[in-house]
Parts: sequence; C-alpha cells; structure tokens
Amino acid sequence: MDKNFVISGVKMFKPDGTVEVANIHVSGDRIVKGNGKWETGKVIDGRNKFATPGLVNAHTHASMTLLRSYSDDKALMDWLQKDIWPIEDKMTRKDIYWGAALAAVEMIRGGTTAFADMYGPDMSEVAKVVDESGLRGSLSQGLISFANGDKKLASNVELYKNFHGAADGRITVMFGPHAIYTCPPDYLKKVVNEASKLGAEIHMHMNETQTEINDCLKNYGKRPFEVVNETGLFDLGTLAAHCVHLSDNEIEIIKQKKIRVAHNPGSNMKLASGICPATKLLAQGVTVAIGTDGASSNNNLDMVEEIRLAALLAKVDTLDPKVIPAAQAIQMATEFGAKALGLQKVGRLEEGCKADIVLWDMGGVEWQPNYNPASLLVYSANSAAADTVIVDGKILMENRELKTLDEEKIFAEFTACANRLTKN
Amino acid sequence: MDKNFVISGVKMFKPDGTVEVANIHVSGDRIVKGNGKWETGKVIDGRNKFATPGLVNAHTHASMTLLRSYSDDKALMDWLQKDIWPIEDKMTRKDIYWGAALAAVEMIRGGTTAFADMYGPDMSEVAKVVDESGLRGSLSQGLISFANGDKKLASNVELYKNFHGAADGRITVMFGPHAIYTCPPDYLKKVVNEASKLGAEIHMHMNETQTEINDCLKNYGKRPFEVVNETGLFDLGTLAAHCVHLSDNEIEIIKQKKIRVAHNPGSNMKLASGICPATKLLAQGVTVAIGTDGASSNNNLDMVEEIRLAALLAKVDTLDPKVIPAAQAIQMATEFGAKALGLQKVGRLEEGCKADIVLWDMGGVEWQPNYNPASLLVYSANSAAADTVIVDGKILMENRELKTLDEEKIFAEFTACANRLTKN
Repeated sequence: MDKNFVISGVKMFKPDGTVEVANIHVSGDRIVKGNGKWETGKVIDGRNKFATPGLVNAHTHASMTLLRSYSDDKALMDWLQKDIWPIEDKMTRKDIYWGAALAAVEMIRGGTTAFADMYGPDMSEVAKVVDESGLRGSLSQGLISFANGDKKLASNVELYKNFHGAADGRITVMFGPHAIYTCPPDYLKKVVNEASKLGAEIHMHMNETQTEINDCLKNYGKRPFEVVNETGLFDLGTLAAHCVHLSDNEIEIIKQKKIRVAHNPGSNMKLASGICPATKLLAQGVTVAIGTDGASSNNNLDMVEEIRLAALLAKVDTLDPKVIPAAQAIQMATEFGAKALGLQKVGRLEEGCKADIVLWDMGGVEWQPNYNPASLLVYSANSAAADTVIVDGKILMENRELKTLDEEKIFAEFTACANRLTKN
Repeated sequence: MDKNFVISGVKMFKPDGTVEVANIHVSGDRIVKGNGKWETGKVIDGRNKFATPGLVNAHTHASMTLLRSYSDDKALMDWLQKDIWPIEDKMTRKDIYWGAALAAVEMIRGGTTAFADMYGPDMSEVAKVVDESGLRGSLSQGLISFANGDKKLASNVELYKNFHGAADGRITVMFGPHAIYTCPPDYLKKVVNEASKLGAEIHMHMNETQTEINDCLKNYGKRPFEVVNETGLFDLGTLAAHCVHLSDNEIEIIKQKKIRVAHNPGSNMKLASGICPATKLLAQGVTVAIGTDGASSNNNLDMVEEIRLAALLAKVDTLDPKVIPAAQAIQMATEFGAKALGLQKVGRLEEGCKADIVLWDMGGVEWQPNYNPASLLVYSANSAAADTVIVDGKILMENRELKTLDEEKIFAEFTACANRLTKN
C-alpha cells in the first residue's frame, strides 16, 4: 500500500489548536516537509475535509463489544455480578479475537487510531487484531489477585515479552492491575517487581466509584492513590482510568508521579459513578486523555461522542461554559491520548510526527455553516463523518471503505460468538 | 406519493416500551389494522430495521442553524450580547427561510418528524418550510416586550390565524413569550388576552439559569413560575422549555397546571446552565419531553444524541444508573414529545395513530450484537442510522434519500445567507 502521498488543501488542526489550510506530506510512517514534487505521486483531495490527528481511546476493553446492549440500566453490582461476569467467564480465545476485531472495525470507522486496552485472558488475540488492523494498541492483561493472580501476572509478562514493540512498534504492552479492590498492596508489589524488571508501564482503574474509596478507607485507612503509591507502582509510569473521586492529596500524587488520567465521561455517567474533575486536573497541568471504557458501559467506542461529553460535562459540572473549549477537547483526545499511552511522536500533525491522521468529511448537514471546524467536530458532527483514517502512514479506511479488515466476515464470526455466549 | 404501504417484518418499539417483530400497515395518514392484502401494494422491507415513532424535538430555534459554530465556549452574556444578538438583528425573511430549510434537512436526516419552534420575526417562512418539507411544526413567534412587543404579539396572532391547522394539520401555532426576564407580568397579561381569544397554547423559556431566578426574586419577590402563574398564562396550556432550577412550589405549579417540560440537556450543559431535574419530574407524572434548543448552543438538531444525553445525565445527576432507562428515554422523545406539542394521536406506533415513523438501519457496527434495539438506539447508535422517515403517512426520506427537499439548493442558499450575515 502506498505510504508516500499528499493530502492537499485540507483544513488542518494544528498542535496549537488553530486550524489552517495545508498540504500534508506523508512519507513512510511520518509526516514530512513538502518537497514541491508531490504533484507526481498519490494525492488525496483534502478539500472540504478536516484533518485531525487520529483519535486515541485512552481506556477500553475492546472485546466487550460482545456484551453491547446485553445489560443496561441496572445497579452496578447487579450488572457486574449477575450479567457481565458470568458471560465473561464463558469467553474463549476466539471470543476475545472476534470481539476485538469488531472493536477495530468500529474504532477505524469512528476515526480512532490508537487505544489502550485492558482485558484478558488471551490478550495475544487482541495483539493479533492490532497487527492485522493497522491500529495502534497499548495492551495490558487485566490482573485480579484472587482469580489466578500469579498466573495472570505471568501471562502479562509473556505478553510484554512477545508483543511490546511488535508490528513496527504499533503494539506496546503495559501491566494491567485491575483496581485496588481486586489487587491488594502485596499483589501490587508483585506487579511492581515484574513490571520494573521489564521497564513496563501500568494501566489501572483508579477511584471509579465512591464505594471503592470507602472500602479502601475501611481496609487500609487511606485512599486508593495513597495506598497504591506506597507500593511503588506509580514510579513505573501510570495510566489511571476514571479518577472520578479525588482528594487534594491524591491530586498531588497524580502530579508528583506524572500519572496520566483517562477520563471516561460516558461510562461514568451511564454507571452513575460521578464526574471526573477534568477541568481541575487540566488546570494543574495533568495529562487528561479521553476513553470510552468498554462497550457494555458506554455502549460504543465512539470517540467523537466521548470528546463532546468531556467538553459538555466539564461545563455543567463547573457551571462555567468556557472550560474545555473545542480545541482543548480535541487535544485531550489526540496529543494527550498519545501521551497517556506513552507513544512518542504521535498525536500532533507536524513534521517528524507519525502519520496518524483522520480526514473528516465536512459535507454533511451538521457541518453547515462552517465557521469553525474544531467546534463542528466537537459540538455538532458525529463519527460517521470519519472519511479517511491513516496510521503510521498506512491508509486503513478511505472514503469510508475499510482497507485492512474484512468487515463482512468479522460481523458473521462476531455474531456467532455473541449468540453462543448469551444462549443459556 | 404512495400513502398506502406496509413495513414488513420490522422490529417495532411498542407504546409499552417493549420491542416486537411486526408488520406496520399505513393507509393515508394513519397506522391501520392489517387486512391481509398487503402483498399486492408497496412493501418496505423492515428486516434489520428498528421502527420507532418519529422523534419530536420539543424545543428549538430552527433558523439558528445559521449561527452553528459561529460562537462557542464563551460566558453566556458575552455570547448572547456580543455574538448572537448582533447577527440575529441582521437576519432577513430570506435568512429565516433558508435557516429553517437547512434545519428541516438536518431533522429529517436525524429521524425527527416534529418540532416546536420559537423564533422570529417572519415565522411564516418557517411555516412554509414545514409545509414543503412534510414535517410537523408547532410554531411560535418569540415575544419580547421591549423590542416591539405589541407588534410582535400582533404578528403571533396573525401567525395563528394564517397557519394554525394548516398543511393538513401538520402546522400548529402557539404563542411564544420569550421568558420572564424579557416579558414582565403586564406584557404576559396581554399575551394571555390575545392567546385565550384564539384558544392558543404557550411555548416559553422557564428557569433556564440561576441568574434568571435571582433577578426574578429581586424584581418580584417570587420565583418565575409563581410570577407567571399569577398572570393566568399557564391556564392556556404551556410548553415550558428548560426548567433547570425549580423549587418544590414551582414543581407543584407544573403539576397543577399540567405544564409540559422540554428538557434540553445538551444546551444546558454547553451553556453551563445546570441540570433539569428530569427524574424527579417524571416520578411525579410530569410530561418531560426532549429538545435540542438552537444549533448555536447545542450545536446540532440531533435528537438521538439528545436522548442519550437525557438518559446519561439523569443517571450521573441522581447517582442512580437505573433512572431514565432506554425505553423511557425513547418515550420522552416520542410520545411525551407529541404531548408536549399538543399533538393528538402522534408519538405511538399503534392502530389509529398518525403514521409518523422512523426506520433505523441496524446494519452498522455500533448496532452489533443486537440484544436490545432500544438500548442500541439510546446508548450506541448515532443519527446517521435514520434510514427512512415517514410523517402523516408520507415518506420524507427513504434509504437516506430525501424525497421532499432539494438538499443541494438548500445548502447553497443557506451558505450564501450565512456568509452574508457574518461578513463584517
């Protein structure tokens, strides 16, 4: 596939949050300086398109697409214990693969180019999907101490050894201790031990619900970030998902340890967990990225929707319409997302950066009139406007046609998996 | 156009909130009982489609599409006074028409079949758009006492006389006193006088911001619903938009006067106005419908998005994931919307009701797997899934092709209007 091309005359979202008309030159996996010779190569007509960096989904469980619309509108523990966990227990290697494959279709179709995934077992199947789809994935095995904790930890080590840096660097591997209520400090110390030997980073759920905080206070006399901090885990570099309920001291820990936050507004709203203080964190210089969480609590992997929710929710939460303006919301889902996943030279449209690019079709009615493309993407468009998606200089979708995945086969296999899992 | 047809084998959203496979028979403007003879007429293949009543946008300002993305992320008064009002002052009859025409394209493309509009002057232009598009519109002239209040009131009277019940009843007219801070009690009494002579109902902004309440308390020593109630306005039948900040006594007034509430979650979030206590109102039997508000504070007319926001926001607001479940969210946007607009026999898919129907294409990746179509529409789909839209038995869009409007011409004329309005 052609990895040398120009996107001509496109409205481009710049790293500083402004928009200007540009020609974007791609050579190999990079955005390069124009050489004046592009008229002879492949040209993608960028007129009436809006180019942004690829969207980064900073927290999801891709294979949970299998559970989309299976159980909704329930109390959290009913939902988890009666509906979700029993099905997850039945999932096979094949389910993990096809669930992630459908997620890959959905992500590419929605302009997502990279995602941080925590699930398992069989994360090597997700790695296979990342490889085949052309996406970037930062994968971690979900670790729960009481459910074969040592075995899972060993499997996360294997995952790292086999896949970290694979697929031309598109696959990276983190360690995925699930949460403080499933990973007590002694177990976290084991994780620290294994991860630090490899130089691996951490992806962990933190402070998602008030119940989790209360239990932690009861069990340890301290809040989750305080307990985890004492294990040394945060010294490895951490992506912390949710961060809904935070004390001032916990925010201090986040700043000191340079913890990157994955804000999941849709899931936190749907599960009634609360609201991540994204505005406050951003004001203090914390990297706040955006994630969808899994498709059973969202219920999609639509980052356009998630960007909008992040912007809208911040405003009504702070009662200030000026916070998280459109350009910042896009930055959270691109540049900050890349930082959250620990990706270098990703998330900005500028010379020398990886060519992870989405072209949004501005022809739809919801893009009229066009005073401000960034505002239109954040406050009016939907993900169906994703027209062309490029990762590492490779075109994964062009004019909404998928180039790397067989959508029909994936739908069929996925549906068979879903039917088998949910029949009694 | 054929107004006798059958939608065969479709998953149908029933008035009780459940879904079952059905054949929907349409004759003239109504859903009728099947006669067994439908194999000979037009058949719309309903397989892999989800049929819901047409969505009702219970509060908008259609022609404000012209201001979409013109000004965002600003403090409310800066936004209104520096950006929005100066442009609105320049709007001509032609702008009102083409702004509403673009809104009609957007609404049909998003599965909306009826809308409550408050704007003006020149609401007869919006009536023309309603007539031509095939939509239903409940139109009101926005009335502000200090800006030619008497003239505007006279123009609302004219609008009623000329258009109430027009276009086969698809156009209805209400009176549109803008808000308590723009319509003092003496002026509201004039509105009551004129509207009651005609038997017209009221569409009014109520309790959108805390500032509005504070000013009202300062000026009148009472809260907005209390002040307005004393004018007799609510005895006419009222659609009250926003209702974000409500005292218990105001909720009592809403119940006593059977006031229908238009909840606008997206706009209230974007402008940081606050959160309408929709869950509390619904629990007390109040008709809570859903609206987008205008495209400069939303920034679209996408009711699928608005349904989702209503469901998600209620959960995080009450910290209860069970409130406003998917089926209820759809009912709010359909049956309750029709009640909010005062429409008879609209908003339910059952024999004898008006054939206002949307077929949602369930083929997209975000509809997989398909355990629960109502949940998928509310929590996963986007409005691009609206495939076929029917109002009064007439097909306005089929397979995403518009049947009543010339989209290309509308885009061109609309863009010319927007350019003229916003050039210095």
